Amino acid sequence: MLPLGFRVLNKINQVIREEMNAVCGEELLMPALVHKKYWEQSKRWDVDIIYKTGENLKDLRDLQYGLGWTHEEVISSIAKHFISSYKDLPKAVYQIQMKFRAEPRAQAGILRGREFLMKDLYSFHADKKDLDAYYEKVIGAYKKIFSRLCLKAKVVEASGGAFTKEYTHEFQVLNPAGEDTVYYCDSCDWAQNKEIFQDGHGGKCPNCKKGNIKMDHGIEIGNIFKLGTKFSDAFNLFYLDKKGDRQIVIMGSYGIGPTRVLGTLVEEYNDEKGILWPEIIAPFRVHLVVLGDSEKVRKEAEKVYKIAAGLVGESEVLYDERTASPGEKLNDADLIGAPLRLIVSEKTIKEKKIEVKKRSEKSAKLISITQLGKLLK
Amino acid sequence: MLPLGFRVLNKINQVIREEMNAVCGEELLMPALVHKKYWEQSKRWDVDIIYKTGENLKDLRDLQYGLGWTHEEVISSIAKHFISSYKDLPKAVYQIQMKFRAEPRAQAGILRGREFLMKDLYSFHADKKDLDAYYEKVIGAYKKIFSRLCLKAKVVEASGGAFTKEYTHEFQVLNPAGEDTVYYCDSCDWAQNKEIFQDGHGGKCPNCKKGNIKMDHGIEIGNIFKLGTKFSDAFNLFYLDKKGDRQIVIMGSYGIGPTRVLGTLVEEYNDEKGILWPEIIAPFRVHLVVLGDSEKVRKEAEKVYKIAAGLVGESEVLYDERTASPGEKLNDADLIGAPLRLIVSEKTIKEKKIEVKKRSEKSAKLISITQLGKLLK
Repeated sequence: MLPLGFRVLNKINQVIREEMNAVCGEELLMPALVHKKYWEQSKRWDVDIIYKTGENLKDLRDLQYGLGWTHEEVISSIAKHFISSYKDLPKAVYQIQMKFRAEPRAQAGILRGREFLMKDLYSFHADKKDLDAYYEKVIGAYKKIFSRLCLKAKVVEASGGAFTKEYTHEFQVLNPAGEDTVYYCDSCDWAQNKEIFQDGHGGKCPNCKKGNIKMDHGIEIGNIFKLGTKFSDAFNLFYLDKKGDRQIVIMGSYGIGPTRVLGTLVEEYNDEKGILWPEIIAPFRVHLVVLGDSEKVRKEAEKVYKIAAGLVGESEVLYDERTASPGEKLNDADLIGAPLRLIVSEKTIKEKKIEVKKRSEKSAKLISITQLGKLLK
Repeated sequence: MLPLGFRVLNKINQVIREEMNAVCGEELLMPALVHKKYWEQSKRWDVDIIYKTGENLKDLRDLQYGLGWTHEEVISSIAKHFISSYKDLPKAVYQIQMKFRAEPRAQAGILRGREFLMKDLYSFHADKKDLDAYYEKVIGAYKKIFSRLCLKAKVVEASGGAFTKEYTHEFQVLNPAGEDTVYYCDSCDWAQNKEIFQDGHGGKCPNCKKGNIKMDHGIEIGNIFKLGTKFSDAFNLFYLDKKGDRQIVIMGSYGIGPTRVLGTLVEEYNDEKGILWPEIIAPFRVHLVVLGDSEKVRKEAEKVYKIAAGLVGESEVLYDERTASPGEKLNDADLIGAPLRLIVSEKTIKEKKIEVKKRSEKSAKLISITQLGKLLK
């Protein structure tokens, strides 16, 4: 993640963080080096995608680690220290952390990396009903996150796999770059992934009975699971209820991949010249290009910079005062993709204006300083 | 890092980030999975502390990675894409990232973990003079960081090892928990680590000739190196100077361990009851304890909470409204160590006051709402 991409990633993380905090998630950070004993306890030491490490170390053989590819094991062990009574429930914690998976098919760049960022939220409940209610709450939070990030994500039913007989849910953005296949209704919200979809209604939606089923590529940017007692069983995670009886804790887990979200945004918002970042996660809101290197131009540009920085914050204005050709500078502005490009040049000064162009629009226009103020407010 | 510790860590990172940005460092993020070929190119694939991974993966043998324990190799490779002319220099980039080292002596908890956070800054220069000037600038930034973090760090001369014949510098906090040994003058700033210290002056300082040499335990929280051309040689990192001649790039690298800084702060600021966080990195500035559960107390506490949150920000007030005994609540407040503890109880309401106690002081006092406003400003 180079500086510009890193800025976008941080803004994505911040949106996720705000919505996780809004559903009472507490942020923490778990280790990436997860001791073998944790994976053995859940019978996941021999999964295909785990990176094992420590085998090369003569003196540390007993310290074999599996790199964290998910953290149900670790959080269940931590939870044992903090959950012992019904008073300690419900509880939700999350982290934003690099995960490691030995993906054989890591070929789609940032969309499927062997090292990728993940927000993983884990929730702990006294009973199934409480988990169900929280699960719906997280669906709401996810919808809000993706809507704030300007992504249209479908909530897609998927198999519960080994965890549960109920469906789990994937959040899929329909996009030709996606590796997944999504079946969805063109009229209502119904959608299923390829693994569970079975056409039993002659191409008609089994939910609303009106719409037609369509098929498309999807990028999975989030998924949520009702884990039930799989990990609380493996790690003996119990609590005492009001009567003093021992009960097993019920768990849920909820993932979003911020680096994959970033890649999805690029796939969704681009043209032949570069990226068109939505304002909320753009590396900079304003890209100020200075054309010409006379003292007059330099001074005017400085003035415009100060006004723009005063309105949107210094850290939101990219100030291109390089000695480079106009072509190079304008191409770079299109490539980087800040939502608004300002130009100060001999020409704009003569007109007593500033040239303004939205990245999403074809044509530029000349506006006054006062109008700039209104535009950036 | 549980939620409270994670908050402290973020605040430490923020201070570091501000001072790195102030010396023109650009933040980015490099991979933790670093392909074998990079380590082989610098002849560091067989160092003792590297975690190798991928050996367990049948189909991915050619994708053997060493977990990033430092990132000179990666940043040198990245720099090749961005540095080709003297116009591209100087350049400084940094990241704040988990590092992995197979430490045989990982026994001091967070002070020496196998997985630990590191801020690593790398700088690129056209010549030695420019590196020397920047190196001094970073020493200044480090002094500012540690002073803002309320740590007295000594700048200690150390061996350049394989990198350089010049000294490198460690930033050491004298503390009995430290694993290092520091020799220092009790009168001037002179200090050296155990490896290079040789007493040739009968216990007198070789620098000021007045002070006496003392010896103490130190915790190393930062270190800086003039790398010279070690990595630019290995990775063919050249630039064209003004005449068009090919020149080798000169490099520096500068580390701080934020998780170790956190541990050092705990070692420096504690008493028998818990931690005494300096305000700038405390998990919360204010800890509001509600004693009693009558409606009257609850309402008054709510009022005080709003006033405090209005003054220091909602996220800076820890609001303890649990149904727990006064003893438990007050012990927890001491343990957590917010700089200021407020109590609202039947007693304080009767007096029309709020009880205030600094964590660093023995006794509490009763103050008015107006006085609270002044205290928190």
